[in-house]
Amino acid sequence: MEINFCNLCGATSEQSIPEGDDKPRAVCTQCGHIQYQNPKIVNACIIEHDGKILLGKRTIAPRIGCWNVPAGFMENGEATRTGAIREVKEEVLADLKNVTLFGVYNIVQRNQVHVYFRGELAHPHFGAGAETSDAQLFAPEDIPWDELAFPVGITALKRYIKEMESGDFSIQEQDIVIDYEMLKKFDV
Amino acid sequence: MEINFCNLCGATSEQSIPEGDDKPRAVCTQCGHIQYQNPKIVNACIIEHDGKILLGKRTIAPRIGCWNVPAGFMENGEATRTGAIREVKEEVLADLKNVTLFGVYNIVQRNQVHVYFRGELAHPHFGAGAETSDAQLFAPEDIPWDELAFPVGITALKRYIKEMESGDFSIQEQDIVIDYEMLKKFDV
Repeated sequence: MEINFCNLCGATSEQSIPEGDDKPRAVCTQCGHIQYQNPKIVNACIIEHDGKILLGKRTIAPRIGCWNVPAGFMENGEATRTGAIREVKEEVLADLKNVTLFGVYNIVQRNQVHVYFRGELAHPHFGAGAETSDAQLFAPEDIPWDELAFPVGITALKRYIKEMESGDFSIQEQDIVIDYEMLKKFDV
Repeated sequence: MEINFCNLCGATSEQSIPEGDDKPRAVCTQCGHIQYQNPKIVNACIIEHDGKILLGKRTIAPRIGCWNVPAGFMENGEATRTGAIREVKEEVLADLKNVTLFGVYNIVQRNQVHVYFRGELAHPHFGAGAETSDAQLFAPEDIPWDELAFPVGITALKRYIKEMESGDFSIQEQDIVIDYEMLKKFDV
Protein backbone atom coordinates (compact mmCIF):
# COMPACT_ATOMS: atom_id res chain seq x y z
CA MET A 1 0.00 0.00 0.00
CA GLU A 2 1.17 3.48 -0.89
CA ILE A 3 1.82 5.71 2.16
CA ASN A 4 2.09 9.37 1.12
CA PHE A 5 0.64 11.00 4.22
CA CYS A 6 0.70 10.35 7.97
CA ASN A 7 -2.35 8.67 9.53
CA LEU A 8 -1.97 10.66 12.72
CA CYS A 9 -1.27 14.27 11.64
CA GLY A 10 -1.87 14.31 7.86
CA ALA A 11 1.63 15.64 7.01
CA THR A 12 3.83 14.10 4.29
CA SER A 13 5.42 10.70 5.00
CA GLU A 14 8.70 9.62 3.45
CA GLN A 15 10.55 6.32 3.24
CA SER A 16 13.54 6.33 5.58
CA ILE A 17 15.28 3.97 8.00
CA PRO A 18 14.36 4.89 11.60
CA GLU A 19 17.07 4.90 14.28
CA GLY A 20 17.70 1.38 15.57
CA ASP A 21 15.97 -0.17 12.56
CA ASP A 22 17.51 -1.64 9.40
CA LYS A 23 14.58 -1.34 6.98
CA PRO A 24 12.97 1.66 5.28
CA ARG A 25 9.61 2.59 6.80
CA ALA A 26 7.01 5.27 6.11
CA VAL A 27 8.10 7.99 8.57
CA CYS A 28 6.14 11.24 9.03
CA THR A 29 8.23 14.32 8.20
CA GLN A 30 6.38 16.33 10.85
CA CYS A 31 5.41 14.18 13.87
CA GLY A 32 7.85 11.31 13.26
CA HIS A 33 5.13 8.63 13.43
CA ILE A 34 6.31 5.37 11.85
CA GLN A 35 3.69 3.39 9.94
CA TYR A 36 4.72 -0.24 9.67
CA GLN A 37 3.44 -2.51 6.91
CA ASN A 38 3.13 -6.17 7.76
CA PRO A 39 1.79 -9.35 6.14
CA LYS A 40 -1.91 -10.04 6.35
CA ILE A 41 -3.59 -13.25 7.45
CA VAL A 42 -6.17 -15.10 5.36
CA ASN A 43 -8.17 -17.78 7.18
CA ALA A 44 -9.72 -20.69 5.29
CA CYS A 45 -11.52 -23.96 6.00
CA ILE A 46 -11.72 -27.15 3.95
CA ILE A 47 -15.21 -28.50 4.63
CA GLU A 48 -16.06 -32.19 4.40
CA HIS A 49 -19.52 -33.77 4.39
CA ASP A 50 -20.23 -37.42 3.59
CA GLY A 51 -16.83 -37.77 1.91
CA LYS A 52 -17.38 -34.72 -0.27
CA ILE A 53 -15.81 -31.23 -0.20
CA LEU A 54 -17.86 -28.00 -0.11
CA LEU A 55 -16.63 -25.27 -2.47
CA GLY A 56 -18.00 -21.82 -3.33
CA LYS A 57 -18.00 -20.09 -6.71
CA ARG A 58 -16.51 -16.58 -6.59
CA THR A 59 -18.37 -13.46 -7.73
CA ILE A 60 -15.54 -11.04 -6.95
CA ALA A 61 -12.12 -10.35 -8.44
CA PRO A 62 -9.65 -11.87 -8.72
CA ARG A 63 -10.70 -15.12 -10.38
CA ILE A 64 -14.43 -14.39 -10.76
CA GLY A 65 -16.38 -17.55 -11.59
CA CYS A 66 -13.78 -19.91 -10.16
CA TRP A 67 -14.36 -22.35 -7.31
CA ASN A 68 -12.62 -21.80 -4.00
CA VAL A 69 -12.22 -23.09 -0.49
CA PRO A 70 -14.07 -20.51 1.66
CA ALA A 71 -11.45 -18.01 2.83
CA GLY A 72 -10.97 -14.37 3.68
CA PHE A 73 -8.90 -11.73 5.44
CA MET A 74 -8.75 -12.00 9.22
CA GLU A 75 -10.38 -9.17 11.14
CA ASN A 76 -9.22 -7.54 14.35
CA GLY A 77 -11.03 -9.04 17.34
CA GLU A 78 -11.12 -12.63 16.13
CA ALA A 79 -8.97 -15.77 16.31
CA THR A 80 -7.74 -17.61 13.21
CA ARG A 81 -10.24 -20.43 13.85
CA THR A 82 -13.21 -18.10 14.46
CA GLY A 83 -12.20 -16.09 11.40
CA ALA A 84 -12.35 -19.23 9.23
CA ILE A 85 -15.74 -20.18 10.74
CA ARG A 86 -17.07 -16.67 10.00
CA GLU A 87 -15.88 -16.77 6.38
CA VAL A 88 -17.57 -20.14 5.86
CA LYS A 89 -20.82 -18.81 7.32
CA GLU A 90 -20.65 -15.69 5.11
CA GLU A 91 -19.64 -17.32 1.83
CA VAL A 92 -21.42 -20.70 1.82
CA LEU A 93 -23.96 -20.20 4.66
CA ALA A 94 -22.72 -23.29 6.51
CA ASP A 95 -22.18 -24.09 10.20
CA LEU A 96 -19.17 -26.20 11.13
CA LYS A 97 -18.13 -28.76 13.71
CA ASN A 98 -14.78 -30.40 14.54
CA VAL A 99 -12.71 -27.49 13.20
CA THR A 100 -8.97 -28.09 13.60
CA LEU A 101 -5.74 -26.66 12.20
CA PHE A 102 -4.63 -28.07 8.84
CA GLY A 103 -1.83 -25.86 7.54
CA VAL A 104 0.06 -22.58 7.48
CA TYR A 105 0.83 -21.42 3.93
CA ASN A 106 3.23 -18.53 3.30
CA ILE A 107 2.66 -16.51 0.14
CA VAL A 108 5.69 -14.26 0.32
CA GLN A 109 5.02 -12.60 -3.05
CA ARG A 110 1.66 -11.37 -1.72
CA ASN A 111 2.76 -10.63 1.86
CA GLN A 112 0.11 -13.06 3.06
CA VAL A 113 -0.07 -16.00 5.44
CA HIS A 114 -3.00 -18.35 4.86
CA VAL A 115 -4.06 -20.34 7.92
CA TYR A 116 -6.05 -23.39 6.81
CA PHE A 117 -8.43 -25.35 8.98
CA ARG A 118 -10.45 -28.48 8.25
CA GLY A 119 -13.97 -29.10 9.52
CA GLU A 120 -17.26 -30.85 8.89
CA LEU A 121 -20.75 -29.54 8.23
CA ALA A 122 -22.66 -29.36 11.52
CA HIS A 123 -25.84 -30.05 9.52
CA PRO A 124 -26.35 -30.56 5.76
CA HIS A 125 -27.43 -26.98 5.04
CA PHE A 126 -25.44 -24.61 2.84
CA GLY A 127 -25.89 -22.22 -0.07
CA ALA A 128 -24.45 -19.29 -1.97
CA GLY A 129 -23.70 -16.41 0.42
CA ALA A 130 -21.67 -13.21 0.16
CA GLU A 131 -19.35 -12.92 -2.86
CA THR A 132 -20.53 -16.37 -3.98
CA SER A 133 -22.90 -17.41 -6.80
CA ASP A 134 -23.01 -21.15 -6.09
CA ALA A 135 -22.03 -23.66 -3.40
CA GLN A 136 -21.62 -27.36 -4.15
CA LEU A 137 -20.33 -30.56 -2.59
CA PHE A 138 -17.76 -32.29 -4.80
CA ALA A 139 -16.60 -35.89 -4.52
CA PRO A 140 -12.77 -35.94 -4.62
CA GLU A 141 -12.77 -37.34 -8.17
CA ASP A 142 -15.12 -34.57 -9.34
CA ILE A 143 -13.21 -31.54 -8.02
CA PRO A 144 -12.83 -29.09 -10.95
CA TRP A 145 -9.08 -28.57 -10.53
CA ASP A 146 -8.78 -26.39 -13.62
CA GLU A 147 -11.49 -24.07 -12.33
CA LEU A 148 -10.08 -23.58 -8.85
CA ALA A 149 -9.22 -19.98 -7.99
CA PHE A 150 -5.82 -20.00 -6.28
CA PRO A 151 -2.62 -22.07 -6.00
CA VAL A 152 -2.86 -22.10 -2.20
CA GLY A 153 -6.33 -23.66 -2.29
CA ILE A 154 -5.22 -26.23 -4.84
CA THR A 155 -2.15 -27.15 -2.75
CA ALA A 156 -4.16 -27.49 0.45
CA LEU A 157 -7.01 -29.43 -1.18
CA LYS A 158 -4.64 -31.90 -2.90
CA ARG A 159 -3.01 -32.74 0.43
CA TYR A 160 -6.40 -32.95 2.14
CA ILE A 161 -7.72 -35.43 -0.40
CA LYS A 162 -4.58 -37.53 -0.19
CA GLU A 163 -4.78 -37.59 3.60
CA MET A 164 -8.54 -38.20 3.79
CA GLU A 165 -8.00 -41.58 2.13
CA SER A 166 -6.00 -42.75 5.13
CA GLY A 167 -7.81 -40.56 7.68
CA ASP A 168 -4.37 -39.62 8.98
CA PHE A 169 -4.28 -35.82 8.73
CA SER A 170 -1.09 -33.81 9.20
CA ILE A 171 -0.50 -30.11 9.88
CA GLN A 172 2.07 -28.54 7.57
CA GLU A 173 3.79 -25.22 7.10
CA GLN A 174 4.64 -24.59 3.46
CA ASP A 175 5.60 -21.85 1.01
CA ILE A 176 3.35 -21.19 -1.98
CA VAL A 177 5.24 -19.74 -4.94
CA ILE A 178 3.06 -17.91 -7.44
CA ASP A 179 3.94 -18.45 -11.09
CA TYR A 180 3.12 -15.06 -12.60
CA GLU A 181 3.76 -16.32 -16.14
CA MET A 182 1.19 -19.06 -15.63
CA LEU A 183 -1.30 -16.57 -14.16
CA LYS A 184 -1.19 -14.43 -17.32
CA LYS A 185 -3.11 -17.20 -19.05
CA PHE A 186 -5.97 -16.61 -16.61
CA ASP A 187 -6.04 -12.84 -17.16
CA VAL A 188 -5.90 -11.94 -13.45
CA MET B 1 -3.80 2.48 15.60
CA GLU B 2 -5.49 5.84 15.27
CA ILE B 3 -6.38 6.77 11.68
CA ASN B 4 -7.22 10.48 11.41
CA PHE B 5 -5.94 11.16 7.91
CA CYS B 6 -5.81 9.26 4.61
CA ASN B 7 -2.51 7.61 3.64
CA LEU B 8 -3.11 8.33 -0.05
CA CYS B 9 -4.33 11.95 -0.23
CA GLY B 10 -3.86 13.36 3.30
CA ALA B 11 -7.52 14.37 3.74
CA THR B 12 -9.54 13.56 6.86
CA SER B 13 -10.60 9.94 7.40
CA GLU B 14 -13.73 8.99 9.31
CA GLN B 15 -15.07 5.72 10.66
CA SER B 16 -18.00 4.52 8.54
CA ILE B 17 -19.33 1.25 7.12
CA PRO B 18 -18.45 0.99 3.41
CA GLU B 19 -21.08 -0.30 0.96
CA GLY B 20 -21.15 -4.09 0.94
CA ASP B 21 -19.31 -4.26 4.27
CA ASP B 22 -20.69 -4.77 7.78
CA LYS B 23 -17.90 -3.25 9.87
CA PRO B 24 -16.79 0.36 10.41
CA ARG B 25 -13.54 1.18 8.57
CA ALA B 26 -11.36 4.27 8.24
CA VAL B 27 -12.78 5.81 5.05
CA CYS B 28 -11.29 8.94 3.45
CA THR B 29 -13.83 11.79 3.23
CA GLN B 30 -12.20 13.04 0.00
CA CYS B 31 -10.87 10.15 -2.13
CA GLY B 32 -12.89 7.33 -0.51
CA HIS B 33 -9.81 5.17 0.17
CA ILE B 34 -10.55 2.51 2.79
CA GLN B 35 -7.74 1.70 5.19
CA TYR B 36 -8.24 -1.74 6.71
CA GLN B 37 -6.72 -2.71 10.05
CA ASN B 38 -5.86 -6.36 10.47
CA PRO B 39 -4.12 -8.58 13.03
CA LYS B 40 -0.34 -8.75 12.99
CA ILE B 41 1.79 -11.88 12.99
CA VAL B 42 4.56 -12.53 15.51
CA ASN B 43 6.97 -15.35 14.67
CA ALA B 44 8.86 -17.20 17.40
CA CYS B 45 11.12 -20.23 17.79
CA ILE B 46 11.72 -22.46 20.80
CA ILE B 47 15.38 -23.46 20.53
CA GLU B 48 16.75 -26.70 21.97
CA HIS B 49 20.38 -27.67 22.43
CA ASP B 50 21.60 -30.69 24.41
CA GLY B 51 18.24 -30.95 26.19
CA LYS B 52 18.30 -27.28 27.19
CA ILE B 53 16.25 -24.29 25.99
CA LEU B 54 17.81 -21.03 24.75
CA LEU B 55 16.16 -17.85 26.08
CA GLY B 56 17.02 -14.17 25.70
CA LYS B 57 16.68 -11.41 28.29
CA ARG B 58 14.72 -8.39 27.04
CA THR B 59 16.08 -4.85 27.02
CA ILE B 60 12.96 -3.26 25.52
CA ALA B 61 9.45 -2.58 26.79
CA PRO B 62 7.21 -4.27 27.61
CA ARG B 63 8.69 -6.59 30.25
CA ILE B 64 12.23 -5.25 30.27
CA GLY B 65 14.60 -7.63 32.07
CA CYS B 66 12.38 -10.68 31.58
CA TRP B 67 13.38 -13.84 29.71
CA ASN B 68 11.67 -14.68 26.45
CA VAL B 69 11.53 -17.12 23.59
CA PRO B 70 13.05 -15.19 20.64
CA ALA B 71 10.13 -13.61 18.76
CA GLY B 72 9.15 -10.57 16.75
CA PHE B 73 6.78 -9.03 14.25
CA MET B 74 6.77 -10.58 10.79
CA GLU B 75 8.03 -8.36 7.97
CA ASN B 76 6.73 -8.11 4.42
CA GLY B 77 8.81 -10.26 2.09
CA GLU B 78 9.38 -13.18 4.42
CA ALA B 79 7.69 -16.45 5.39
CA THR B 80 6.66 -17.30 8.95
CA ARG B 81 9.56 -19.77 9.23
CA THR B 82 12.18 -17.39 7.81
CA GLY B 83 10.82 -14.63 10.04
CA ALA B 84 11.36 -16.79 13.12
CA ILE B 85 14.88 -17.71 11.95
CA ARG B 86 15.67 -14.00 11.41
CA GLU B 87 14.43 -13.05 14.89
CA VAL B 88 16.57 -15.77 16.48
CA LYS B 89 19.63 -14.54 14.59
CA GLU B 90 18.97 -10.93 15.60
CA GLU B 91 18.12 -11.48 19.27
CA VAL B 92 20.37 -14.37 20.38
CA LEU B 93 22.87 -14.50 17.47
CA ALA B 94 22.13 -18.17 16.79
CA ASP B 95 21.80 -20.26 13.63
CA LEU B 96 19.15 -22.96 13.54
CA LYS B 97 18.55 -26.37 11.99
CA ASN B 98 15.49 -28.64 11.86
CA VAL B 99 12.99 -25.77 12.19
CA THR B 100 9.38 -27.00 12.11
CA LEU B 101 5.95 -25.65 13.00
CA PHE B 102 4.97 -25.99 16.67
CA GLY B 103 1.84 -23.89 17.22
CA VAL B 104 -0.49 -21.08 16.22
CA TYR B 105 -1.50 -18.92 19.18
CA ASN B 106 -4.30 -16.35 18.84
CA ILE B 107 -4.09 -13.32 21.12
CA VAL B 108 -7.43 -11.71 20.28
CA GLN B 109 -7.08 -8.93 22.86
CA ARG B 110 -3.91 -7.76 21.11
CA ASN B 111 -5.00 -8.46 17.51
CA GLN B 112 -1.99 -10.74 17.16
CA VAL B 113 -1.35 -14.26 15.90
CA HIS B 114 1.87 -15.84 17.17
CA VAL B 115 3.28 -18.56 14.94
CA TYR B 116 5.65 -20.75 16.97
CA PHE B 117 8.34 -22.97 15.53
CA ARG B 118 10.77 -25.33 17.23
CA GLY B 119 14.36 -25.83 16.16
CA GLU B 120 17.85 -26.79 17.25
CA LEU B 121 21.12 -24.86 17.36
CA ALA B 122 23.07 -25.53 14.15
CA HIS B 123 26.27 -25.05 16.20
CA PRO B 124 26.73 -24.17 19.89
CA HIS B 125 27.28 -20.46 19.35
CA PHE B 126 24.93 -17.79 20.65
CA GLY B 127 24.97 -14.52 22.56
CA ALA B 128 23.07 -11.35 23.39
CA GLY B 129 21.98 -9.59 20.20
CA ALA B 130 19.50 -6.81 19.40
CA GLU B 131 17.09 -5.86 22.20
CA THR B 132 18.72 -8.52 24.39
CA SER B 133 21.14 -8.20 27.34
CA ASP B 134 21.80 -11.90 27.95
CA ALA B 135 21.23 -15.28 26.29
CA GLN B 136 21.35 -18.52 28.24
CA LEU B 137 20.56 -22.21 27.90
CA PHE B 138 18.21 -23.45 30.62
CA ALA B 139 17.58 -27.05 31.61
CA PRO B 140 13.80 -27.60 31.80
CA GLU B 141 13.89 -27.71 35.61
CA ASP B 142 15.80 -24.40 35.73
CA ILE B 143 13.53 -22.30 33.51
CA PRO B 144 12.72 -19.09 35.45
CA TRP B 145 8.94 -19.28 34.97
CA ASP B 146 8.27 -16.23 37.17
CA GLU B 147 10.66 -14.14 35.09
CA LEU B 148 9.27 -15.07 31.66
CA ALA B 149 7.93 -12.13 29.67
CA PHE B 150 4.62 -13.21 28.16
CA PRO B 151 1.75 -15.67 28.67
CA VAL B 152 2.08 -16.96 25.08
CA GLY B 153 5.74 -17.88 25.63
CA ILE B 154 4.94 -19.58 28.93
CA THR B 155 2.08 -21.57 27.34
CA ALA B 156 4.20 -22.68 24.39
CA LEU B 157 7.26 -23.54 26.52
CA LYS B 158 5.23 -25.58 29.02
CA ARG B 159 3.82 -27.73 26.22
CA TYR B 160 7.25 -28.02 24.59
CA ILE B 161 8.84 -29.30 27.79
CA LYS B 162 6.02 -31.76 28.37
CA GLU B 163 6.35 -33.06 24.84
CA MET B 164 10.15 -33.17 24.77
CA GLU B 165 10.06 -35.83 27.48
CA SER B 166 8.31 -38.21 25.10
CA GLY B 167 9.85 -36.77 21.92
CA ASP B 168 6.35 -36.83 20.45
CA PHE B 169 5.72 -33.22 19.42
CA SER B 170 2.29 -31.96 18.37
CA ILE B 171 1.19 -28.83 16.50
CA GLN B 172 -1.63 -26.95 18.21
CA GLU B 173 -3.82 -23.93 17.57
CA GLN B 174 -4.84 -22.24 20.79
CA ASP B 175 -6.24 -18.99 22.20
CA ILE B 176 -4.18 -17.05 24.73
CA VAL B 177 -6.32 -14.97 27.07
CA ILE B 178 -4.48 -12.12 28.75
CA ASP B 179 -5.38 -11.51 32.39
CA TYR B 180 -5.07 -7.72 32.61
CA GLU B 181 -5.63 -7.77 36.39
CA MET B 182 -2.68 -10.11 36.80
CA LEU B 183 -0.54 -7.94 34.50
CA LYS B 184 -1.04 -4.88 36.75
CA LYS B 185 1.23 -6.59 39.27
CA PHE B 186 4.03 -6.46 36.73
CA ASP B 187 3.54 -2.76 35.92
CA VAL B 188 3.39 -3.26 32.13
